[in-house]
Formats: sequence, structure tokens, C-alpha cells
Amino acid sequence: MNDLIKALRAFAGERDWERYHSPKNLAMALSVEAAEIVEKFQWLSQDQSRALDAGKLAELEEEIGDVMIYLTMLADKYGLDPLVAARKKMEINRAKYPAEQVRGKSDKYTEYE
Amino acid sequence: MNDLIKALRAFAGERDWERYHSPKNLAMALSVEAAEIVEKFQWLSQDQSRALDAGKLAELEEEIGDVMIYLTMLADKYGLDPLVAARKKMEINRAKYPAEQVRGKSDKYTEYE
Amino acid sequence: MNDLIKALRAFAGERDWERYHSPKNLAMALSVEAAEIVEKFQWLSQDQSRALDAGKLAELEEEIGDVMIYLTMLADKYGLDPLVAARKKMEINRAKYPAEQVRGKSDKYTEYE
Amino acid sequence: MNDLIKALRAFAGERDWERYHSPKNLAMALSVEAAEIVEKFQWLSQDQSRALDAGKLAELEEEIGDVMIYLTMLADKYGLDPLVAARKKMEINRAKYPAEQVRGKSDKYTEYE
Repeated sequence: MNDLIKALRAFAGERDWERYHSPKNLAMALSVEAAEIVEKFQWLSQDQSRALDAGKLAELEEEIGDVMIYLTMLADKYGLDPLVAARKKMEINRAKYPAEQVRGKSDKYTEYE
Repeated sequence: MNDLIKALRAFAGERDWERYHSPKNLAMALSVEAAEIVEKFQWLSQDQSRALDAGKLAELEEEIGDVMIYLTMLADKYGLDPLVAARKKMEINRAKYPAEQVRGKSDKYTEYE
Repeated sequence: MNDLIKALRAFAGERDWERYHSPKNLAMALSVEAAEIVEKFQWLSQDQSRALDAGKLAELEEEIGDVMIYLTMLADKYGLDPLVAARKKMEINRAKYPAEQVRGKSDKYTEYE
Repeated sequence: MNDLIKALRAFAGERDWERYHSPKNLAMALSVEAAEIVEKFQWLSQDQSRALDAGKLAELEEEIGDVMIYLTMLADKYGLDPLVAARKKMEINRAKYPAEQVRGKSDKYTEYE
């Protein structure tokens, strides 16, 4: 993670691009990249989405890379680390959805069922 | 990263939630979480977006955690690692935007200027 | 459509909110509202998505209203009309996907099949 | 509006595309098109976003058309009309944000100020 953060800072610095990278702009770019992932799945059935061929998988990996890059750049503007943020959020979710209570019920997911 | 992947698998397994986690559904959830980050910045000026107070920062960290969680879960469905994907994409970007050529010009960013 | 445009202008004017309504900010708000629609469908099967109950339908109508409001406000910043834009785009799509050629093949939709 | 709805039904029918158009899939497509609008504004300043040139404006009108098309198709799956939904939502917003109370304060927009 630290290596990625350093590489991203150097990459933007060498190109004089920091001035475009306000948190507001990075948030927009993050959502655009997330939508490019959605685009790959929008007309697929659930089953088709589980079985991408090699070419589509290579494209998906690039898009995942883009989301990770903008997420890390945004987090870095505030000294945050996405991996640490994910672990913290997992603890919050553990407390919020205790396994013994939600197992089989999956309340989080049954809003529409 | 590996610890996060294992923790996410265990978390979903203990709750019997894997059946909801098709790549298609995870892509949707990823984009929804990215939009929750956009929502925090939508009415802010660029300068305001650089200066969040402690309460807003704590909320943002939770949202960053959510994006990281769904990105990792989606990647894991194909045996991909977001950190590796980001590093690979950086190499592609380095080749695509050579520093000596784009510095000062920032062609990537000037589409509308 | 014209009535809606006038009502939206009056609504923002009475509240002194035009200063927040730059096209950039309206584009962000539009995408956030679109994501709130995605959120309602993210864990549903295709079949479940076709059969929302009355309560969920009322919520969906509100979200559709929100998207329409921000789309109209954004378009109005440039003197554009979403309905006219949709009709124009239909003509472009008609030329791009001739019925006799794509029927049964649905190339647009089979990228991943 | 009714003409657009009829034209969209005919367009999908002639191409045998209705089977791709579940509400879940249309919601995804809607959000992807909204993100394509965000993409046009992501690196622009607020002022730049107010002054698009003719070429960029023509592109934007196409994207607005795309959002309107998918929003109308999604709404039509439930017999809803985006224009009616927008008018209803305006009434809800009027009650929620009375002009005399929010004028000058703009509480809705000051969450981060």
C-alpha cells in the first residue's frame, strides 16, 4: 500500500497534475471508473457475470486498477489508507450484523423480498 | 491484502450471504458506495473539499472502507487483487502518458479547456 | 416540460440556491440520484426487480423524480431539453442499430456472451 | 412524453431487446449514462463547466438523451412517467424546504460548510 501511495504521488508530481486532483475531482473520477465496471455487467445475467472470458477479465482488471488508483489518491489527500479503512469498516459491520442473528435471515439483503 | 480477503470471505460465509454476491451485484454495490462519496462533495467548492472537519472525515473514511470492501470482494471472485491491478495499471499509464511529453500540457485533463 | 423548467427555476431562485447549481455540481447530483435507484435493485434478482410492492414503487417514483429534476436543471443551464435530446438520440440509435440487422443478434448486448 | 414512450417501446420491440431490459439492468444502464455526464465535468473548474464549446455541448446533449431514454424506459416498466414523478417530487421538496426558512441559510447545501 505504501509503495502504491508513493508511486501515485510521484506519477502526478512528474506530470504536474496535482492541481487537478482536488478531493472533489477525485471523487468524481472514482465514481466514473466504478461505472465503467458496472458497464461491463449491465446486460449480463448473474450467471454470465460469473464467467468472463480471458479478454473481458483483462479489461476488468484494468478497471479495478483504475478504481483502486483513484480511491488511494482520494484517501491519501487526508492521510487515510483504504486497507485500514476497510478493516475498520469490517469491525463496524461485524457489530451491526451479528452472524448468529442474520444467518439465514439476511435482513440486509431482503428489503425487497 | 490477503488478510482482508480472508476476513471478507469469512464474514460473508458466516452470514450465508455469498448467494447475493454475484459479480454483477457486487459491481452495483461498488458504484453505489462510490456515489456515497460523491454525495459528500457534490455541493462543495474545490477548496471546501480539501478541508473536511473531523466528523466529515470519519464519515468519509467509512465510505472509503465500503468501496474498498466491495472492490476487494469483486476482484476476489476472479482471483484478482486490487493492489496488483493498480500497480499494473500504473505501468500502462506510464507508457500512455510519458512525463516529459505531458508535463505542462496535461492533455489528459484539458479535453474541455 | 416547459412548466417543469419554470417551476425548477422558481424553486431555486426563491431559495437563493442557484450559486450551488453549477453544471459540474448538478452532474454530480444527477449521478448520486441515479445511484440511489441502483441501490434499490442491487441485491434483487432480475425477476424480483420486475415485481416491486407498492411501498417500494412509491420510493422508486421519488428517486425517478429526483433524477428527472437534476437532469432537467443541468440541461436548462445550456438551453437544452431532455425530451428533445432523447428524441434526437433515438434517431442516432436508429441509424446505428438498424432493426433488420440487429434483430435476433442483438450485438449491442452480446459483448459478453 | 407519451410519444417518447411509444417510440422506445417500438424501438426495443423491433430489435427483440426487451429481454435485456429488466428494471435491474435498466437501472445499471441509467447510472452508467449518468457517469458519462460526470466524466465530461470531472477535471473542469466550476467556471469551465459553465462554458462548454459547441462540440462539447453536442456531446453533452447526446448523453442527456441517453439518461432520459433509460430513465423513461425504467419508469415505463412500472407505468410511471418521469415528468409526473418530477412534479410530485417538487411538491415534496416544497414542503420540506420552505423558501422563507431556507433562504439565505441553504441548510440543504451547507452540511460541509
